[in-house]
Amino acid sequence: MSTFTPVSSLKGKSVASATQFCRSDIDALIQLALDMKAHLDSGKTIDALHGRIMTPLFFEDSSRTLSSFCAAMMRLGGNVVNFKVETSSVNKGETLQDTVRTLDSYSDVLVLRHAKEEAVEQAMSVATHPIMNAGNGSGEHPSQALLDTLTIHAELGAVDGITIAFIGDLKKGRTVHSLFKLLTHNFSLRKVYLIAPAGLEMPAEVLHHVAMDIETLGIAIEQCASLTPEIVSDCDVLYATRLQKERFAASTAGDTDAMAAFEASKSALVIDKARMAHAKAKMIVMHPLPRVDELSTDIDDDPRSAYFRQMRYGLFMRMAILFSVLS
Amino acid sequence: MSTFTPVSSLKGKSVASATQFCRSDIDALIQLALDMKAHLDSGKTIDALHGRIMTPLFFEDSSRTLSSFCAAMMRLGGNVVNFKVETSSVNKGETLQDTVRTLDSYSDVLVLRHAKEEAVEQAMSVATHPIMNAGNGSGEHPSQALLDTLTIHAELGAVDGITIAFIGDLKKGRTVHSLFKLLTHNFSLRKVYLIAPAGLEMPAEVLHHVAMDIETLGIAIEQCASLTPEIVSDCDVLYATRLQKERFAASTAGDTDAMAAFEASKSALVIDKARMAHAKAKMIVMHPLPRVDELSTDIDDDPRSAYFRQMRYGLFMRMAILFSVLS
Amino acid sequence: MSTFTPVSSLKGKSVASATQFCRSDIDALIQLALDMKAHLDSGKTIDALHGRIMTPLFFEDSSRTLSSFCAAMMRLGGNVVNFKVETSSVNKGETLQDTVRTLDSYSDVLVLRHAKEEAVEQAMSVATHPIMNAGNGSGEHPSQALLDTLTIHAELGAVDGITIAFIGDLKKGRTVHSLFKLLTHNFSLRKVYLIAPAGLEMPAEVLHHVAMDIETLGIAIEQCASLTPEIVSDCDVLYATRLQKERFAASTAGDTDAMAAFEASKSALVIDKARMAHAKAKMIVMHPLPRVDELSTDIDDDPRSAYFRQMRYGLFMRMAILFSVLS
Repeated sequence: MSTFTPVSSLKGKSVASATQFCRSDIDALIQLALDMKAHLDSGKTIDALHGRIMTPLFFEDSSRTLSSFCAAMMRLGGNVVNFKVETSSVNKGETLQDTVRTLDSYSDVLVLRHAKEEAVEQAMSVATHPIMNAGNGSGEHPSQALLDTLTIHAELGAVDGITIAFIGDLKKGRTVHSLFKLLTHNFSLRKVYLIAPAGLEMPAEVLHHVAMDIETLGIAIEQCASLTPEIVSDCDVLYATRLQKERFAASTAGDTDAMAAFEASKSALVIDKARMAHAKAKMIVMHPLPRVDELSTDIDDDPRSAYFRQMRYGLFMRMAILFSVLS
Repeated sequence: MSTFTPVSSLKGKSVASATQFCRSDIDALIQLALDMKAHLDSGKTIDALHGRIMTPLFFEDSSRTLSSFCAAMMRLGGNVVNFKVETSSVNKGETLQDTVRTLDSYSDVLVLRHAKEEAVEQAMSVATHPIMNAGNGSGEHPSQALLDTLTIHAELGAVDGITIAFIGDLKKGRTVHSLFKLLTHNFSLRKVYLIAPAGLEMPAEVLHHVAMDIETLGIAIEQCASLTPEIVSDCDVLYATRLQKERFAASTAGDTDAMAAFEASKSALVIDKARMAHAKAKMIVMHPLPRVDELSTDIDDDPRSAYFRQMRYGLFMRMAILFSVLS
Repeated sequence: MSTFTPVSSLKGKSVASATQFCRSDIDALIQLALDMKAHLDSGKTIDALHGRIMTPLFFEDSSRTLSSFCAAMMRLGGNVVNFKVETSSVNKGETLQDTVRTLDSYSDVLVLRHAKEEAVEQAMSVATHPIMNAGNGSGEHPSQALLDTLTIHAELGAVDGITIAFIGDLKKGRTVHSLFKLLTHNFSLRKVYLIAPAGLEMPAEVLHHVAMDIETLGIAIEQCASLTPEIVSDCDVLYATRLQKERFAASTAGDTDAMAAFEASKSALVIDKARMAHAKAKMIVMHPLPRVDELSTDIDDDPRSAYFRQMRYGLFMRMAILFSVLS
């Protein structure tokens, strides 16, 4: 019925972490996502998951990730039960495990978003169907890391050999941690810039996690606090993340200082038309969105701005994942 | 596969305003809606939009319009992503344009409800798929105006030549403004009564907007503050709208005066069994619902009460619109 | 197209009460639910309600019942309009009847949950499509009673002849009332234990309701306040319900007394590993969930613990009901 080839190693499996995928899985997911994109772009539809049910279980708000997963399931012909955590038995003191068992009894796959890192393991321990981790606290966000990888591949033709800069709050950014680990473990990058304000640098444990891969693959790492013209011109990918004012209050002495630090960081890191003047002709700007001030709208029409296309790649990567897990 | 004829001028287009439709579009939409009604009433289903996704983006609550659009999409075989504005990135400071771009990347059509009139234009400026305006502040509500027109046609056999009274708060009623413009622009009405309490009359700019059409088509207009037996007996359509107590406080001197003014207006305007005694045998009562006090439940069983059937026509008109836009 | 046999007496009917079903209806629903379970367990899908729309109208939160009904409709190939009561015209003063008429105009079936017992009758009086009662105040919860009966039949092979204990707050438990009535009216039970703390006993009117059936069928009834080893060893079914601390405050003199009474009741009623040591090899533990303290997690792995399987039977019973009503 369908002409797509699922990534067979994912069949019936939960997707808990970006680190669970080997290079050949990632390559196969990228190919499958691109095949599905071509199929849909030609006006065709897919019925592969007809009669199957996905239930999202979102303990944290993330309407962007939620609607992307829902659209992916529906584009595959499947259906979605809209479970509302805020009105559920959780308020009556029900454990996560009992809630998961309930939804697991109706569903073919659950999509879990939770503020606690251990939630994914707890859910997997009682579920009889696969759990998709859609963000677990400061842990992982594997589908985001995979869609980011797909975006780089689709836009630049390859991920091996690129130079990428991660820019912004690298301390709390779950998205950046997942992608940084996935890329350095699986692709021979040329160089990674880690550009963060003082106090918001990439955590030591993440650097420690990737240390061996970086050494093995010979990837250069450079940390700094400002997005200079030299860095812009050296990069194939500028990956920006949200700068949040609240984070500065916590890491500095007082409110006035915090605001001054935030403004200084913003002007040192914002990606705008002026900075993009130094960029190569073939490169891309990425951002997991939503953006606030760190990404200027004055580059929205620049063909190198890939952040809106990145969301669309998200649809296809999540389709590839769900299709492989449920096929 | 489907035997329905889409209104080809709508193909791939946004529906922003009731004034964008010419008479032949309206006639074709009415015919298409009635064809779909006959099809569904005979127990058949429609799969025309199988595999297509609609995402509602409702910044204001309107569960009636929302569920009507959702049911219309599903009755056509399509699917709906339930996007919750209240938990979205809008709370993180995201612009309307960025939110629209996000949903546009997953969807075939967006349905927008927003408190600001300019929201529809802003959404259309960045979307690559059609936007359905489901109410933009004091602006328009085009699908409501079209379903109202369908109701008149289906119930009375024709719209040309009718006498219609708009009754209630005509100042703020977006629904009434849209329908008044659409009818006077496209149909040779015999007469229009505008019946509103003092301070809540039809705005001068709306009257100005329709002035030329009224002159060209020779439509009589009469404004007054009370629904007299003479008017009731003259009308083919009594179109009531909600009378809100809050509106009276704003337009009068004090609270006691406001309550007194509200009660006086209610008794001058309410449609009930006593007033319906003066109405013709073949005429209809309409109301966009929800009603409060301005429409008595004592006429619910009167066959001329068309307000519940009107909701059902809404389903078929929205099916006709979505089918034409997406076919 | 489908090989399933609907329970023809339900066709086009509302499901208001567990007492509306005769024994042959119940047997037929159980058989249909088991047929559907076998079909789905073999990996097949059902399209019987393709093109049909269910709208839940939940005035009270019950995400478990809601998602079970939604999954049942989707597993039958139907679709669900997500109507949000909290943002609806109910807040603008709309009556239940008008809200029901609105949704009835788009839908093939409504599922109603409401705090007031009379709500189901009010909804049925204006709806042109069937209403599924998903809980009306202290009234009924018929689909729960039916799924409980299915669970007993499927797990033990028969309902006739069993001994069952209802344990916990039997005063307010709508679920227990519905099931107690349905079982005593239709099945020749051997014995029923009613085990409740002082002040939370089975209401006199419920006992009065079943009195004639109990006499006719010769069912023994025993009321007590503690789940003794003798009772445990005598039962085929232990049916536990939630013990809520709040209920004790109301039925005792003071707060300290209330806590002491709650703790004493809990230790007299909790089902745990120690008590299960006295149970037969072939028996089951049931609970409508969510549980709090009255059901220990230390028996979750006991094969006699049927409460998670019970939720899955709920899916199949609701499928059997919706299929029969809409076929």
